[in-house]
Amino acid sequence: MAVTFTSIGIIKTPFKGIDGMPIQPSGAIDVPGQLVMDAQYEDGLCDLDGFSHLILLYHFHLSKGYRLTVKPFLDTVKRGLFSTRAPRRPNPIGLSIVRLDRIAGRILHVLDVDMVNGTPLLDIKPYVPAFDVRSDVRAGWLEQCQERSTSLKSDQRFREKK
Amino acid sequence: MAVTFTSIGIIKTPFKGIDGMPIQPSGAIDVPGQLVMDAQYEDGLCDLDGFSHLILLYHFHLSKGYRLTVKPFLDTVKRGLFSTRAPRRPNPIGLSIVRLDRIAGRILHVLDVDMVNGTPLLDIKPYVPAFDVRSDVRAGWLEQCQERSTSLKSDQRFREKK
Repeated sequence: MAVTFTSIGIIKTPFKGIDGMPIQPSGAIDVPGQLVMDAQYEDGLCDLDGFSHLILLYHFHLSKGYRLTVKPFLDTVKRGLFSTRAPRRPNPIGLSIVRLDRIAGRILHVLDVDMVNGTPLLDIKPYVPAFDVRSDVRAGWLEQCQERSTSLKSDQRFREKK
Repeated sequence: MAVTFTSIGIIKTPFKGIDGMPIQPSGAIDVPGQLVMDAQYEDGLCDLDGFSHLILLYHFHLSKGYRLTVKPFLDTVKRGLFSTRAPRRPNPIGLSIVRLDRIAGRILHVLDVDMVNGTPLLDIKPYVPAFDVRSDVRAGWLEQCQERSTSLKSDQRFREKK
């Protein structure tokens, strides 16, 4: 079953290319970005200014193809793709939680952005602790190395092999 | 910019229709479901069994159209669409965090499912506290009523008006 989605806006960030980017918002604390919504969606932003955090869904538009096992940024051995947050996926949809600074018309000023500049935005959802925070979590192979995400930067490994 | 995604599997749940469904996983504690992956993706499930929670992205395939302001299940006044988790959205992508019980071949047995039976699955990501848990969160209009999501059930309001 195929479904076609259309971007609702563009994410502007300081990251002009994939190299040297943070690999998660936890490695991009205070990095500012803007969500520039298409004008037709501006009325849907009402009430959003009461939320401190937003869930962004976006298209990993620079990711081409995928492999079912990958060597992630945070590990030295290959892992099953769905146990990673790698951008090259069957459906390359990115998910990041950012902080909302302020809204000016159809532009949302956000912090902690970890996307490349020009990323197409697919959806904004409010981050709601009762829905989105879980305790007693086991994080598999990431358990020991998740904290390293604050310092590691992206590199070429998710480019498609020629 | 348009992008086409194809489901990677189907979500089986006890909910045969929209009416009476839980509106979030927080209202679906222990409800069992299965993610039946397409056979071609089975190798990508490796290492996932170490994770207690999964983020599911899926297509709200029964949602047709949208309005930029909606009266959510949890409130009595209209709210901007992007400040809600309503299924009728410009890009009807659902996001739920479920608990992983066990994996048997290409079938993932999960708990806390709040989707309708037959929902097309778009992506599975591991839920990782360092990436996905935030503190000091303000939840806007949902601040006072988010706990009610445990008891409220879905109704007809997100069907398209004829």
